[in-house]
Amino acid sequence: MSLAHRILAGDLRAAARLMRDLDDGFRSAAAEMKLLYPHTGRAFILGITGPPGAGKSTLVDQLIAVYRQRRSRVGVVAIDPTSPFTGGAILGDRIRMNRHAEDPGVFIRSLATRGHMGGLSRSTGDVVNVMDAMGMEVVIIETVGVGQDEIDIVRMAHTTVVISVPGLGDDIQAIKAGVLEIGDLFVVNKADREGADRTARELAAMLEMKQTKPGDWQPKVLLTEASRNRGITEMVEEVETHRRHLIESGALERIREERSVRQFMDLLKERLFAEVFGHIQVNGRFREIVEEMTARRTDPYSAVELILTERFAGHRMSNS
Amino acid sequence: MSLAHRILAGDLRAAARLMRDLDDGFRSAAAEMKLLYPHTGRAFILGITGPPGAGKSTLVDQLIAVYRQRRSRVGVVAIDPTSPFTGGAILGDRIRMNRHAEDPGVFIRSLATRGHMGGLSRSTGDVVNVMDAMGMEVVIIETVGVGQDEIDIVRMAHTTVVISVPGLGDDIQAIKAGVLEIGDLFVVNKADREGADRTARELAAMLEMKQTKPGDWQPKVLLTEASRNRGITEMVEEVETHRRHLIESGALERIREERSVRQFMDLLKERLFAEVFGHIQVNGRFREIVEEMTARRTDPYSAVELILTERFAGHRMSNS
Repeated sequence: MSLAHRILAGDLRAAARLMRDLDDGFRSAAAEMKLLYPHTGRAFILGITGPPGAGKSTLVDQLIAVYRQRRSRVGVVAIDPTSPFTGGAILGDRIRMNRHAEDPGVFIRSLATRGHMGGLSRSTGDVVNVMDAMGMEVVIIETVGVGQDEIDIVRMAHTTVVISVPGLGDDIQAIKAGVLEIGDLFVVNKADREGADRTARELAAMLEMKQTKPGDWQPKVLLTEASRNRGITEMVEEVETHRRHLIESGALERIREERSVRQFMDLLKERLFAEVFGHIQVNGRFREIVEEMTARRTDPYSAVELILTERFAGHRMSNS
Repeated sequence: MSLAHRILAGDLRAAARLMRDLDDGFRSAAAEMKLLYPHTGRAFILGITGPPGAGKSTLVDQLIAVYRQRRSRVGVVAIDPTSPFTGGAILGDRIRMNRHAEDPGVFIRSLATRGHMGGLSRSTGDVVNVMDAMGMEVVIIETVGVGQDEIDIVRMAHTTVVISVPGLGDDIQAIKAGVLEIGDLFVVNKADREGADRTARELAAMLEMKQTKPGDWQPKVLLTEASRNRGITEMVEEVETHRRHLIESGALERIREERSVRQFMDLLKERLFAEVFGHIQVNGRFREIVEEMTARRTDPYSAVELILTERFAGHRMSNS
């Protein structure tokens, strides 16, 4: 039986196996994803982003508990920096989620930020699709809110929550500005710390500067203290309010369509490169190019031009 | 006269113009880069990375001053998160470097972390090549040490300095572990803060855990206080010691070759996608695919398969 059929039948080990195959870039994995795709499009995708030290993982842990109380199955994709010493994702934060480890209604997958041939956003999209097909009603994507990839990833979410904390310093606050536009809800965590109210007021003031039209969603700023489970229910209520807004305004359908287009483009980029790079490795052109570049008889720009001409000779388009 | 010839003649405005053209993805820019390429390969590329709040920009400012005293021309590529409110790179940190603004021997370029079609590392590589061709003896790349792109970027440097500060909290220290393997020199900045010696000792202890062979470079840990210009000369001396090590061991040549190969691969990926995506936009296939996906009659995985089959029909390779 195919992995896809086993996954649809509820086999968690098959799901973990397919995620590994996707990581390893197996061609067979794409065929499985085709089979799963008709069973996707039902999960609610919740993005959680914020700087290191904001307490995101503790907050995600509390969110899982709330959704489990409401009988929703929850998938989590946690995107971590890697450590060469631990040999993989840093597990410190993940361990805090372990109280859900024995719950078959919770499926947690850590993705390293490095080594994704097709890009991290493509890998994340695939894992979200697998969890969606598994019947997870809620899929939470947790990322560090810094870097192009990370921001692109939370753009795939239906609702994005931006977490901040009091007193992280100016530079981190500046970085936070980069994610202001993508937040549907802002949470100041560690609200027992000095300066929490001021951070919340400053965020609210920055949000008021945004140009809005009547009917636009107005992001709120909430205070939480995840480690003591304070403010979590209110946060989930606001997430649910945003979700209803997305459904009623038709925006949810639009986000789903954009996500499909994005996945198509990411996958096209990856497969085109794999096809052509595989080709020039097999026929020895790549080795020749490396030698010519080393001898400085050619350069990367000329070499790429040459490969494209060879590859698309005779049927290049007007856009070239 | 071409931009490339004007740049080689010392025209700074032509350099800025080419960097904008590269950002905008103009085809003409690739032709200019071909002309410049034979004039590259001379600059020493110094990567400076570390978490937000580590004082990287102040440190870079002091480094510029030291290299200028030594009559080296200095280029800086600063990679910043973007803000939707400021409409570009956040300028706070950049302003601190302004004391060099009137110095024609210093050229600073900020790159936003988003909106780089071919990827941030490709854009950074192009800007470094332009600065190299301009005759900058030292090119400093400054990045936030979080995220896949950022780590890939400092991997292009000849010498990489990892900056940390005392007391940033566990999560940030964990992320720092991800850059331990890429550091040739570790600097604990803001050394007047409590805990600086402890941070330095912990770093040294982690570095000692690394497996090394005789003749391998042994990264040191230094203390600096960039805002008071303390420890900067010692830092530059250690950077220069590493640079000599690279030259004497032959590693510098290897790093240069790897950088060319990386640039070739990044550019190939970008141009292949631009070519094929342009094609399916012009001939209407992209619009059809979006409609089919929206109606859920196809999926991203099947659509990509179809495009590849159409594109490479008749000459697919054994690797497919």
